[in-house]
Amino acid sequence: MLKDIIENSENYQPGLSIDCVIFGFHDNQLKVLLIKVDKSQKWSLPGGFIPVDQDIDTAAITVLNSRTGVEGVFLRQFATFGKVNRNEQHFDKKILEYLKIEEEKGKWLLRRFVTIGYYALVDFLKIIPNSMNRNETVEWIDHKEVPELILDHKEILDKALDTLRMELNLMPIGYNLLPEKFTIPELQKLYETILDKKLDRRNFLRKITNIGILSKLDEKKSNVAHKAPNLYSFDKEKYEEVLKIGLNQGW
Amino acid sequence: MLKDIIENSENYQPGLSIDCVIFGFHDNQLKVLLIKVDKSQKWSLPGGFIPVDQDIDTAAITVLNSRTGVEGVFLRQFATFGKVNRNEQHFDKKILEYLKIEEEKGKWLLRRFVTIGYYALVDFLKIIPNSMNRNETVEWIDHKEVPELILDHKEILDKALDTLRMELNLMPIGYNLLPEKFTIPELQKLYETILDKKLDRRNFLRKITNIGILSKLDEKKSNVAHKAPNLYSFDKEKYEEVLKIGLNQGW
Repeated sequence: MLKDIIENSENYQPGLSIDCVIFGFHDNQLKVLLIKVDKSQKWSLPGGFIPVDQDIDTAAITVLNSRTGVEGVFLRQFATFGKVNRNEQHFDKKILEYLKIEEEKGKWLLRRFVTIGYYALVDFLKIIPNSMNRNETVEWIDHKEVPELILDHKEILDKALDTLRMELNLMPIGYNLLPEKFTIPELQKLYETILDKKLDRRNFLRKITNIGILSKLDEKKSNVAHKAPNLYSFDKEKYEEVLKIGLNQGW
Repeated sequence: MLKDIIENSENYQPGLSIDCVIFGFHDNQLKVLLIKVDKSQKWSLPGGFIPVDQDIDTAAITVLNSRTGVEGVFLRQFATFGKVNRNEQHFDKKILEYLKIEEEKGKWLLRRFVTIGYYALVDFLKIIPNSMNRNETVEWIDHKEVPELILDHKEILDKALDTLRMELNLMPIGYNLLPEKFTIPELQKLYETILDKKLDRRNFLRKITNIGILSKLDEKKSNVAHKAPNLYSFDKEKYEEVLKIGLNQGW
């Protein structure tokens, strides 16, 4: 795969790559989609190169799919990473020997790379990754147990998480991440898991209600010992509306 | 300048550029810093290329300075633009003839470019641009009177303005853009100018006061016929604090 790309490097933008941070939520767990190349000690974000005939937004979808088999995920660009030495130590001549690539062709890989970060938040039970390369493992890993990553991938991951947390202040969240009918405590847990902190119950109820995207159902959660909590669903139309204008019309 | 870069293109990242959107505010006017190359019909954002030995954040400062003479401005990256055909029509073989560059060398310029956008907001009276190239004009132009721009620069400008407006919901603003002592209506005008809409006076007063970054001074504005408005200044320490944590601790 990498060998193919290097040998046909004229079909890819030089010195530019894409890395994807795919967050997965389910049942109060936040995970990240990571890849490990068998021979490597470290894990990495799913990343790759930009075909010269693809817009970068399209290339991000291509890259994610080609490394993890994942498709149908809405990827958002969040930042571009371009410190001079960010990939200097990772790709050295050894990889060319390993891939059996001649030095002249291999120069394409050994140069400085700037990488564009894309991220998404999905339900990790609904997105089943597949390793697309025989010598790679793709896994959902709890975001609190992320192992050592290659290059500056930890920095990219942290920045994506910052962006996701910041977006909680701008956009509604939860659609496609919770069951169709859910309780306020379940929704609160989603926010708490992403923010990694406890929220005040009453404050949360007041704020989330004020947004006006919830419909209170005429049902209570069953299987609950006593004082069964109310069930809610998202009012899809209002949810979409708020997605468009943002939470804070602010001023 | 461009000729120098093309003839020494091995010193620059290939297929990657930087464009800067410098917004300037003063006295209820919002302007943008634009450049016109004498022979061209269109204006452009100040942009340029990334030296292989500079981090992209540093390169942004270099690029802005080399085109406009501007320095000491805090540039923030906001998005990367990479549609396949974004620069296809702009740089064609004619420019190589004009610059007297041989075709082989010139290929570097004619390939597909992805560009990283940086933006800043300054007081346009404090930042005096200088054309750094004899055949270029650099000017502050009212953002409502922006002429036709090259390539996708209008899209880049619009996205920067969207980002700036969104940031009003996340960050305090006004420091270095207003006189040391100012009235609430003056501060409101800053917000209205950037948002391009009228705001409710009482609402604004309540919200801006709640942030807790203003100090009410024991002075009133002079030179005002009657009912002189109170003067305020920013509480620098609290301002910095809110800059760090953001306006919306939200949840």
